[in-house]
Amino acid sequence: MHILITNDDGVHAPGLLALKQGLEALGQITVVAPARNQSAAGHRKTLHKPLRLEATCLADGSPAWACSGAPSDAVALALLGFVKEKVDLVISGINPHFNLAQDITYSGTVTAALEAVIAGVPGVAVSTEMRSPGDFAQAAQVAARVVRKIAEQGAPPGIVLNLNVPPGEIKGARITRQGQRVYRDALVERRDPWGRPYYWIGGEMPTGVAEAGTDVGAVLNGLISITPLNLDLTAREVMPALEGWGWSSTD
Amino acid sequence: MHILITNDDGVHAPGLLALKQGLEALGQITVVAPARNQSAAGHRKTLHKPLRLEATCLADGSPAWACSGAPSDAVALALLGFVKEKVDLVISGINPHFNLAQDITYSGTVTAALEAVIAGVPGVAVSTEMRSPGDFAQAAQVAARVVRKIAEQGAPPGIVLNLNVPPGEIKGARITRQGQRVYRDALVERRDPWGRPYYWIGGEMPTGVAEAGTDVGAVLNGLISITPLNLDLTAREVMPALEGWGWSSTD
Repeated sequence: MHILITNDDGVHAPGLLALKQGLEALGQITVVAPARNQSAAGHRKTLHKPLRLEATCLADGSPAWACSGAPSDAVALALLGFVKEKVDLVISGINPHFNLAQDITYSGTVTAALEAVIAGVPGVAVSTEMRSPGDFAQAAQVAARVVRKIAEQGAPPGIVLNLNVPPGEIKGARITRQGQRVYRDALVERRDPWGRPYYWIGGEMPTGVAEAGTDVGAVLNGLISITPLNLDLTAREVMPALEGWGWSSTD
Repeated sequence: MHILITNDDGVHAPGLLALKQGLEALGQITVVAPARNQSAAGHRKTLHKPLRLEATCLADGSPAWACSGAPSDAVALALLGFVKEKVDLVISGINPHFNLAQDITYSGTVTAALEAVIAGVPGVAVSTEMRSPGDFAQAAQVAARVVRKIAEQGAPPGIVLNLNVPPGEIKGARITRQGQRVYRDALVERRDPWGRPYYWIGGEMPTGVAEAGTDVGAVLNGLISITPLNLDLTAREVMPALEGWGWSSTD
C-alpha cells in the first residue's frame, strides 16, 4: 500500500511526523505537505500562480516534499503526477484540534482528503485535541487501525473518512454524522500606531452540542468519531418546497 | 430588506456592480467584499492575522468596503457587527464562471454564502458563464427575482441557494441537485531562469456530465439552476457498511 501523507499545519508539524511514524509499518509512505501553516486555508485550487515543491526532511531524517500552496494543492500536484508511483490512500493530519460539525468546511485537513476523493483516491482526515504529546501517538495508532480496515474492506468510493480521536482515555469508536458547533466569534477592533482601525475575528473557542450519533457527541464522550463525508451538499429535503415557489416564466 | 453583497473577484469586479444595480430597488444594500481577487480561496476563517476594512466606492459612485481577507472573512466581519444594521440576506457574486458540482467546495462565491448561513443569515450565490457584458445584467435580473421570492416565501433555514444563470437565451428555471464535473487538470512543469522546477495546475477547463435534474444538466440546456445547499456532508448511505467493519476494542 502506497500512502500519501499531508496536512495543513506544515510539513514540519509534530502531528504529521507522528502520523508518518504510526503508518510506516503499513506500506510505502510519501509526504507532500504545505511548507508553512495553512490552517483554515479552506479548499483551494491555486491556478493563478505557480507552485514550488522543495525537497526537505522530517525530524526523523525521512524525506518529504514542502509545497508552497494549500493542502489541497499539495494533494493535487502529488496525484497529477509529481508522485510517480500510484497512490492508494491519502491521509491528512494529525491536526492538533478537532475538525467537527461545520468546522469541516473551513478545515485544510479535511479539504486535503476531499481533494484526494475528487481525484479518485480514498481520503482520510485525522484530528485530535492535543493536550499532551502522547495524544498524537494515540491518534496515529487509531489512524493505523482505520487504514488496516480500509486495506481489508476496501474504501467506500467517493467518501472521505473524517477521524477525530479524543485525547486521554478512549472508550470506543462510533460511526457518526456531522453535528452542530456553536461558534462564539466576536469582532475585535484594534488601532494601529497611526490610529487606523483593524479587526480580528476573535471571541471564544466554539463549543459543541453533545448530541448522540454525532461527531461532536462522540468526542465529548471519549469516543473515536469516524464520519463518512461526501462532496454533495444538496439539501434534498427542501427541493419540493422550492419547486412550489413557482418558477415558470410568468411568476 | 437589508442585503449584504460580497463576491470573490474583488470589490471592483463588474459582476458585483451588476448585482448591486440589479438589487438596489429591493431594499438597502451594503457592499463588503475582498479588496482583491480571491477566486478559489475556499472557505476560510482568518484567525492568525488582523483584517483591514477600507472605505471605497464602486464605479457608479456608491459606497463599499474593501476587506483584506477572503470572501468568508468579509461576511464574518460584516455580520459580527462591522455592519451595524441587521442584515436580512447575504448575496455573493456575480461570478463570471459557473459554480457547479464539485466546484462548490472550491468556490469563494459559494463559501461566502455558506458563511452567512453559519451565522444564521440566508445566503445566495450567483454565477454565470460570462460571454458578453449583458450576461451579468441578465444574471442580476434572475437574482432579483430569487430575492423577491425569498422575501415573499421566507428563506429555508440553514440553506444556501446556489444560483447558476446561463448566458444568452434562457429557457426556464429548475430546482436542481449537485451534479458531476470532470476535471481535466494536468501537472505542468516549468523551469525558472536558474533551472529550478516549478509547477502549474494546468490542463483544460472542466467539463460536466449533462445529467437531468442536476446543476450541470440545467445550465447546459439553457436553464437557470437553483440548488439548495446545506453544510452537512455526511454520507449517511455508507454508515451501515462502516459499522459492519467492526469497531469494538478487540477488532
